Amino acid sequence: MNTRNAYALRSRQNRAPFGLGNRALSRPEAGVPPHPACATLPEKVCRHALADRNENARLKAREEAVKGRFDAIVPLLKAISALQHSADFVERAQSLARQQLGYALPEEILENAWSNGLDVKSLHSRSVFAALLLSAEEYSAEYRSKNESWQDLHSFFLDCGFHSVDISPCADGRLKGLLPYILRLPATPFIRRKAYAGAMFDVETDVRHWMAVELGRYREGVPNFAEDGTRYLKIAVYHFSSSSPRHEGCAAHGSDDSAAIDAALQRLLEFRQAIENSFCCGAGTDILLIGVDTDTDAIRIHVPDEEGSLSASRCIDNAALYAASLGLGENDARLAVHQAILDAGESRPHEGMRRLIANLLINNLSQIEYVAEYYGGRYHDIGHAERYISVGDGFDEVQMRNVAYYAHLHTLEEGMSDMDIGIKIFRHLMARRGLPVPIAIHFRYDARVPGSRARAVMRTRRIEEAIRSRYADLEAAGLLACHLTVQDLPAGSMIEEIIDEDHAG
Amino acid sequence: MNTRNAYALRSRQNRAPFGLGNRALSRPEAGVPPHPACATLPEKVCRHALADRNENARLKAREEAVKGRFDAIVPLLKAISALQHSADFVERAQSLARQQLGYALPEEILENAWSNGLDVKSLHSRSVFAALLLSAEEYSAEYRSKNESWQDLHSFFLDCGFHSVDISPCADGRLKGLLPYILRLPATPFIRRKAYAGAMFDVETDVRHWMAVELGRYREGVPNFAEDGTRYLKIAVYHFSSSSPRHEGCAAHGSDDSAAIDAALQRLLEFRQAIENSFCCGAGTDILLIGVDTDTDAIRIHVPDEEGSLSASRCIDNAALYAASLGLGENDARLAVHQAILDAGESRPHEGMRRLIANLLINNLSQIEYVAEYYGGRYHDIGHAERYISVGDGFDEVQMRNVAYYAHLHTLEEGMSDMDIGIKIFRHLMARRGLPVPIAIHFRYDARVPGSRARAVMRTRRIEEAIRSRYADLEAAGLLACHLTVQDLPAGSMIEEIIDEDHAG
Repeated sequence: MNTRNAYALRSRQNRAPFGLGNRALSRPEAGVPPHPACATLPEKVCRHALADRNENARLKAREEAVKGRFDAIVPLLKAISALQHSADFVERAQSLARQQLGYALPEEILENAWSNGLDVKSLHSRSVFAALLLSAEEYSAEYRSKNESWQDLHSFFLDCGFHSVDISPCADGRLKGLLPYILRLPATPFIRRKAYAGAMFDVETDVRHWMAVELGRYREGVPNFAEDGTRYLKIAVYHFSSSSPRHEGCAAHGSDDSAAIDAALQRLLEFRQAIENSFCCGAGTDILLIGVDTDTDAIRIHVPDEEGSLSASRCIDNAALYAASLGLGENDARLAVHQAILDAGESRPHEGMRRLIANLLINNLSQIEYVAEYYGGRYHDIGHAERYISVGDGFDEVQMRNVAYYAHLHTLEEGMSDMDIGIKIFRHLMARRGLPVPIAIHFRYDARVPGSRARAVMRTRRIEEAIRSRYADLEAAGLLACHLTVQDLPAGSMIEEIIDEDHAG
Repeated sequence: MNTRNAYALRSRQNRAPFGLGNRALSRPEAGVPPHPACATLPEKVCRHALADRNENARLKAREEAVKGRFDAIVPLLKAISALQHSADFVERAQSLARQQLGYALPEEILENAWSNGLDVKSLHSRSVFAALLLSAEEYSAEYRSKNESWQDLHSFFLDCGFHSVDISPCADGRLKGLLPYILRLPATPFIRRKAYAGAMFDVETDVRHWMAVELGRYREGVPNFAEDGTRYLKIAVYHFSSSSPRHEGCAAHGSDDSAAIDAALQRLLEFRQAIENSFCCGAGTDILLIGVDTDTDAIRIHVPDEEGSLSASRCIDNAALYAASLGLGENDARLAVHQAILDAGESRPHEGMRRLIANLLINNLSQIEYVAEYYGGRYHDIGHAERYISVGDGFDEVQMRNVAYYAHLHTLEEGMSDMDIGIKIFRHLMARRGLPVPIAIHFRYDARVPGSRARAVMRTRRIEEAIRSRYADLEAAGLLACHLTVQDLPAGSMIEEIIDEDHAG
């Protein structure tokens, strides 16, 4: 019996390794049996034939550089705080800062230390924002240098029959690395990513985005002509925790995995229905549901049937697939992936969808190995460890696990519950240690639309004001630090800081 | 010299009667000379050959019915308040209410009067909302009965080369009758009207509406096919007061007419530019600017040149045109209107635009005569006299001068300044007399979009909460009455009341 047949046979007889039944999703917390795949996940470095070890090393270096920049701040500030009464304080502090952070601290704060005491709060939040901007700039430089890679990806998506891909993950900070790490997709103009608490994306907003894309096809043939018969792909991404399913799952759904899946499925159906109802037949959209185990970064893909319908239980567990295909040669491993898709359900999705799913599963094998190699198969920080709150449109440039808590909002009034959760997390992470909560308010504008930049700037200011007024206790205690930026729409555009005289510093 | 030539000659030699130079827009308040046209406006009933006297009579009856319903509330409440200690109070009160208001009052409030005193505040706001719903229902019934009239209008617009018309007037209550009264345009699915303080419409929102319209043309040929070469027409409508230009003009622009005109012109240009920049050439839109003298309802139309450009000074003053063409026969009067358009500037707009402008001017002649006949040529209530605050999408069904102050908003956070102005007006109009400020929060939903109704309901509740929390002093004094309704998108749909247990009554 060759590998492929053994694999197909096993998965037909018993779906457990790849398909998770509903039972598995609602297993009791107490005495949690190991995740079907966890037990088989490698504790030490593995060598999966399809994992890209060079890319893993590059991504690890990037992660260390970015997180290191944030994590160096507190030790550095502690060190210079101890020096603040020394005679050559300013010089010594700047020399330490340049050496350990890579940039100088604001001179006037250091110079005033002798009379007012060192303003550690200001230094901390200014350093957090400096780390953020440096990381973003580093990424932008890289992005600008390799436009070809996303041209390839674009062709791949078109070959699969998709002219546009719109992904709505949960806003949880542990999914912040979804594209570059978990799915290994480069940032490109035709992948749209908007995160919402619980992956509960806004149907009306997304229908408008769909309209803009379709109109572009009719008017300008961008990205392709409307006659081409390709489809718009909408993906929702929920998450769960295999180590602590009842506590470290999706907070927006009370750590109830079934609820998270059902809600995301429902929203996807509503999106497709809205388009079909409003724009008659032929308004072809495909939907796809992906789950992420935030402890291991292994994904589940809910495989559509031949009619494009999804189900909570018809899914492929990539952790199990990794374990089962570990040790196979490259070709056999590929075959195993394709076979798992064919075996996922009685009827099969169209060929382009199958190719896309295979690609995502294979990409994610590298990330499973990344977590295996660098984190022993399971992250240590399975809970919240975000470095700042990202408000508004978010930075496309800094996408990495647990770097930011993200509240996608246009007004605080609408995004209040997301923001309340973020502030609660940061009261614990920062405010109780006497450090201001760093809030990066960021909006994109469209330079082609007159007045758009001015309105984006106004929006950042309006939201800053609303935040300062809603969390008045933190504001009064000097524990809110807001940083305002806007950015033109094209990827890689410069991030422009808005200096507000009233709140500078 | 025949009439036409005399007319053409006069307007070439001296534009004053029809074209208002910038000077006229900024004349000093003290010792205001009469408006060029006011002096010639008839004090008594006039008979302009192009005025539709039957329609005027019908509109006057409608105005009296609607305003009468609101204005009867206070006298009725005063009368029944005087009876509240009589033995058969409830019966006598209900009998009076049915007779004078046309509906019964809430029984439980009347029944509790003997112990708690009559709750006049609740009765007042409940009656205001009852009057509003009755007026809306009356209108809807009429609308449903005469679909043909807007089919004609649709054909007319298409003949003029416009497949869609989007009008943004100022939110001022005195422009609330813009379509049915001032411009004599019936409510139709292809005229979109969204009011904003100072006519400062939201470019991004309007570009999205433009996209939806254009996509409908490409996908479904509705209202016509994209190949047909018609244009999307965007109209902004500002207002001024010829009697008291410095005090009763547009509050959003500090009663400065030149500022109001320049701002509206600028916004129109931004809209057109946004579409041209984002969707390449050929994204044909026409723009038009109209001014309304809120004392007389006479309009000014700023006539585009052959390139579609507008100017603050190149405009036709319809009050002057009315005066000049009064006494002419029907044909000569029509010729005078067309000649005024030809004479407005050196170069002329395209033929369809000229036909549209002629139609609007002629329609407005009826309204000038309406104000002449029923109000002696000038409204008595040149200031604020609104009956309720309309929040959200507003009621298409109740469009009449000074019936409502309108705050078009999606969140209070964004619409705060509009709402603050409205509350300020109603503190004066109602709260200082001990009557609650009636706030009708109304949103449209799209039944074709799953979940849309539930989200609209949630939005009404969110905004109610935000209003009650922002105007806490009024809330504490029991001087805020909110009424929540939603309505499906198609014109004439039922208005559905949202009963909120916490705030009922």
